[in-house]
Amino acid sequence: MSAEQRVAVLQEPERITVETRPVPEPGPGDVQVAVRAVSVCGSDVHYYDHGRIGGFVMHGPLVLGHETSGVVSAVGEGVEAPAVGTRVAVEPQRNCGRCEQCAQGRYHLCPWISFFATPPVDGSFAQYVTVPAGRAHPVPDALSDDAAAMIEPLAVAVHAAGKADIGPGTRVFVSGGGPVGLLCLQVARARGAARVTLSDPVAKRREVALAFGADAVVDPGGDVEIEPVDVVLECTGVQAAVDLAIAATAPAATVVLVGTGAQVTLPLDVVQGRELVVKGTFRYAHVYPAAIAMAASGAVRLDAMVTSHHDLDGAVDALLAARRDPDAIKAVVRPG
Amino acid sequence: MSAEQRVAVLQEPERITVETRPVPEPGPGDVQVAVRAVSVCGSDVHYYDHGRIGGFVMHGPLVLGHETSGVVSAVGEGVEAPAVGTRVAVEPQRNCGRCEQCAQGRYHLCPWISFFATPPVDGSFAQYVTVPAGRAHPVPDALSDDAAAMIEPLAVAVHAAGKADIGPGTRVFVSGGGPVGLLCLQVARARGAARVTLSDPVAKRREVALAFGADAVVDPGGDVEIEPVDVVLECTGVQAAVDLAIAATAPAATVVLVGTGAQVTLPLDVVQGRELVVKGTFRYAHVYPAAIAMAASGAVRLDAMVTSHHDLDGAVDALLAARRDPDAIKAVVRPG
Amino acid sequence: MSAEQRVAVLQEPERITVETRPVPEPGPGDVQVAVRAVSVCGSDVHYYDHGRIGGFVMHGPLVLGHETSGVVSAVGEGVEAPAVGTRVAVEPQRNCGRCEQCAQGRYHLCPWISFFATPPVDGSFAQYVTVPAGRAHPVPDALSDDAAAMIEPLAVAVHAAGKADIGPGTRVFVSGGGPVGLLCLQVARARGAARVTLSDPVAKRREVALAFGADAVVDPGGDVEIEPVDVVLECTGVQAAVDLAIAATAPAATVVLVGTGAQVTLPLDVVQGRELVVKGTFRYAHVYPAAIAMAASGAVRLDAMVTSHHDLDGAVDALLAARRDPDAIKAVVRPG
Amino acid sequence: MSAEQRVAVLQEPERITVETRPVPEPGPGDVQVAVRAVSVCGSDVHYYDHGRIGGFVMHGPLVLGHETSGVVSAVGEGVEAPAVGTRVAVEPQRNCGRCEQCAQGRYHLCPWISFFATPPVDGSFAQYVTVPAGRAHPVPDALSDDAAAMIEPLAVAVHAAGKADIGPGTRVFVSGGGPVGLLCLQVARARGAARVTLSDPVAKRREVALAFGADAVVDPGGDVEIEPVDVVLECTGVQAAVDLAIAATAPAATVVLVGTGAQVTLPLDVVQGRELVVKGTFRYAHVYPAAIAMAASGAVRLDAMVTSHHDLDGAVDALLAARRDPDAIKAVVRPG
Repeated sequence: MSAEQRVAVLQEPERITVETRPVPEPGPGDVQVAVRAVSVCGSDVHYYDHGRIGGFVMHGPLVLGHETSGVVSAVGEGVEAPAVGTRVAVEPQRNCGRCEQCAQGRYHLCPWISFFATPPVDGSFAQYVTVPAGRAHPVPDALSDDAAAMIEPLAVAVHAAGKADIGPGTRVFVSGGGPVGLLCLQVARARGAARVTLSDPVAKRREVALAFGADAVVDPGGDVEIEPVDVVLECTGVQAAVDLAIAATAPAATVVLVGTGAQVTLPLDVVQGRELVVKGTFRYAHVYPAAIAMAASGAVRLDAMVTSHHDLDGAVDALLAARRDPDAIKAVVRPG
Repeated sequence: MSAEQRVAVLQEPERITVETRPVPEPGPGDVQVAVRAVSVCGSDVHYYDHGRIGGFVMHGPLVLGHETSGVVSAVGEGVEAPAVGTRVAVEPQRNCGRCEQCAQGRYHLCPWISFFATPPVDGSFAQYVTVPAGRAHPVPDALSDDAAAMIEPLAVAVHAAGKADIGPGTRVFVSGGGPVGLLCLQVARARGAARVTLSDPVAKRREVALAFGADAVVDPGGDVEIEPVDVVLECTGVQAAVDLAIAATAPAATVVLVGTGAQVTLPLDVVQGRELVVKGTFRYAHVYPAAIAMAASGAVRLDAMVTSHHDLDGAVDALLAARRDPDAIKAVVRPG
Repeated sequence: MSAEQRVAVLQEPERITVETRPVPEPGPGDVQVAVRAVSVCGSDVHYYDHGRIGGFVMHGPLVLGHETSGVVSAVGEGVEAPAVGTRVAVEPQRNCGRCEQCAQGRYHLCPWISFFATPPVDGSFAQYVTVPAGRAHPVPDALSDDAAAMIEPLAVAVHAAGKADIGPGTRVFVSGGGPVGLLCLQVARARGAARVTLSDPVAKRREVALAFGADAVVDPGGDVEIEPVDVVLECTGVQAAVDLAIAATAPAATVVLVGTGAQVTLPLDVVQGRELVVKGTFRYAHVYPAAIAMAASGAVRLDAMVTSHHDLDGAVDALLAARRDPDAIKAVVRPG
Repeated sequence: MSAEQRVAVLQEPERITVETRPVPEPGPGDVQVAVRAVSVCGSDVHYYDHGRIGGFVMHGPLVLGHETSGVVSAVGEGVEAPAVGTRVAVEPQRNCGRCEQCAQGRYHLCPWISFFATPPVDGSFAQYVTVPAGRAHPVPDALSDDAAAMIEPLAVAVHAAGKADIGPGTRVFVSGGGPVGLLCLQVARARGAARVTLSDPVAKRREVALAFGADAVVDPGGDVEIEPVDVVLECTGVQAAVDLAIAATAPAATVVLVGTGAQVTLPLDVVQGRELVVKGTFRYAHVYPAAIAMAASGAVRLDAMVTSHHDLDGAVDALLAARRDPDAIKAVVRPG
């Protein structure tokens, strides 16, 4: 008879219930992780509201949550590390390991990837999850459970910023002051950027951005004049923000499109006249150890982004925290 | 008393007259070139029709023509080479040499660039022009006058293709079978691309593309299925063509936007999900010697693209050749 | 009772005997290949002479041969392709698939790699070999069995040349006119290099290099003056050749070290004063399809490099062909 | 009658005298800088001892000093900025602006470069120097005169580190704990390196390295085991140090050769088996603004490296400070 656990399940848009389900056993090469903390992502909220994101559509109940930390509680056949008891940040993806993308080292682009909380794959609003052993990354004591969960969005920022050559002398523009924008800002800082300017229409978010190290903030709705930048990290997916970001580029600048959306329209004369390089970025690969090191060294502050805690029964509150409270940045669910 | 020359002047849209003007004397560091051949570019036709291209607007008479070959006929103070009598391909731009872009080696992005036949700078539908000595590139006897003129559009293709890493194994999609598309096709071939597919709605152009070395051609209006490619060279600036090109990309592909237009709309899910790299390209820098070597070696065929010749009095015929004759590719004006 | 095959075994340095051994059965995911042709590499000769190459030492009998073509004769469990009867070029390496190097897409740097004819792994001087299905690359009819075997050394050249940015305008210096040098020369040509100069002290090899497309050849022992080059492909591993190659570099040039040896000494003032980039290259990864396409298109000529054929009993003659005949380039063993 | 200044002149090896010379007037495009601080470089000491460095040989008296800060005291014809009174860090090189290297943006590789304190060009152990206006970089008040002088060696480190892709996750090994090593260490830190290990045989220097942010230090003479690194910044030019550094590399690592010397010998099996990339670095280009920003932000600490001050008459003491005092790092001359 298998053990049981409590799981918060999105039954349909706007309806989450907590169920009892069997604890998943780790298969060969997998580990089982007792979940400690799950920070909430905007994509979780989007599934809660709409039951879909673009082409990814719920056709049945879905467990949300993919920013996850925990403790290894069991290991499958053939697993040498990490050992039971190890605190880990969970990289929530499983690739096929055999396709061309995997062979090329781009495992995040594997066409057969499965990813937490992306239909039909369940996420981590649960007491236990299983992942490939190599995706359970040990974290040092310096990282709190919350911070270890937030390694996931930090990985997004590390990967995105890694697509631009940011270093001493680089002038960076971060478009959008939500959680990913704040993390991109911090990563740009940690890479030694000469100047980081962040744009957000919400005054409170601009304040927060300054507290997290922005050199300057701008209100895109105002009469904005931004000094030319070498790198844009666009974290909104909103056309007006893209327009502003493109306008801010110096010749030969790189624009990384981080924020999701349906489409973006680019002015050809600017993209060509300045020979811009526009790069799409998708999740991440190979960056968890780097993200953990950055957080552990204090170069990036994660705990300071957490603004509320919830238990599994409060999953809806966690999902709606950012909507209800203008000061909220990151809500964390502790499945307990 | 200075010598005189004949010049074809676009007085206003759709009205060209041939005038007599003084032969320009080469200033310090410049050479004077007796023009032998000027091939016609779509941008010349656009000025002829509309008096403008985007933000570049005629506010007075303009001499068209920027794809130019000739013979050095006089040299200014301090010029050591090329000597009088040297056959040259003319790189029709003059940069400031002092700004940040020039210092970085991106002289084509110099904000003070002046370029032939771009208002208010006159072009080469004339018997004589002057250019900086370093922009008059000697050509070997193997290159005809026509081919030497067409080094200019070839330079566009060499520069654009240089923005993607095309080599053995690379699968390339060229979007558009006009002159620049045909040149991009030939350059991709010359770089060792594994497979080059070209798309054009005009059957005749697809035929020509096959003759110039395409492995396959597709009619974008048909029920097209294109095998995934690593590199797109988009030479139309037309949205439907961009859509087709983006759809054809493999993960981690590079899309170079060569064709001009107002704007392009990109599907974010594809650009991000495949981590595409989209690059704007603007004219060229540092590539004339390479383009000349390619044409001289026979790796690229330029003379085969010339479909009509005209004298200065026939400048309008040259401009309208492509419109009047579906088989036309390149018209050449010989100012004589 | 398993089937039997004939195998040429290097029992100890300078002593090869032909033995009867069981035909190897393909394990899960592997294919069995009936060997058609094995071209001889200098490393085979080195093992024959010395029983070792650097740190790789024979401690027992070894089957030589790693440049291999054949026909798939059986497939192991789970193999979907290539099917029995498919003509293939054999990529003679097997990586672990789980280590950091494999995950990063650098499977050739896998610390647990096993490679044909590298102690203690046997090679292909045999009637049958087994390899992972994905390392048996189908070849078109356009490729002869000999050419399909020589995809292996061509892969070395494609990989090495891929480490330098060779394209139109690039001036290339190939140091050494042995088989790998000739292949590097051809690959540089196929990538559109502006000018390829090859150096070899043997007059006959310089002649051959001209026949294979070199623009110029030089005798390193002579009073050499080489025009500056952007890329060096050093295929000898000999200090005097490295010295000459370094001397030939233009500022910011790339030097790829292809030829093996114990060590190379570099002049710091030149490496620094010209900001050279020196790259080591090791075998290859991901390039077989590209190499096959290049050979199939005629961009690289392989059959023209074959100067003798031998059966298994003539393996020693094949190994010593290059030593005995100054005109020999590549000897091929057909195990029959 | 022109004004006069005091200048410390190296008359011949080991003999410096202070002379009175005319104050140099700024030519067109140049500025005159009243020197405030000149920090001493090992190359100054080498000229003092030997009268030469490699191929650069004194054939007459030479003014040493090239790490320079000051205040603009006069401007030549056509200079718009910086204005008289501006505090500046002096980039001590003057390129031709017309050659291929200058056109490509690699002005530091200009074959006609002139550089302070490199025969026969005088340096800045003087009260006044002149430089091109664009090489006099304004510094903010946050930078002391000493720090502004040390922007020069910092520029070396910024340029060198910029040749490796150092970012979050990168494991860096700095070979040598002299001033350039300490600056490379700080720059690697500022770029977000995951771990920086520094090696030096002198215990005191290892202590200092820890104080400047090294995660670990090693004594190369000891029984050293270094965990594999992705980037080596080799700052000694000494063979034993190069050997250790190469041994420490992970596959696909980059080794930047910063330290000068006659030659280095590299083990081919390691360079090839790991596919290392070895890069020479020469001075710097385009990095002064970045270096100034790093110092101004506190990401790099320069004042903490100054261990003694001297006037012009004490130039010899400044040159010999590091030799006489094991705790010395940087001596600064203030021409006053």
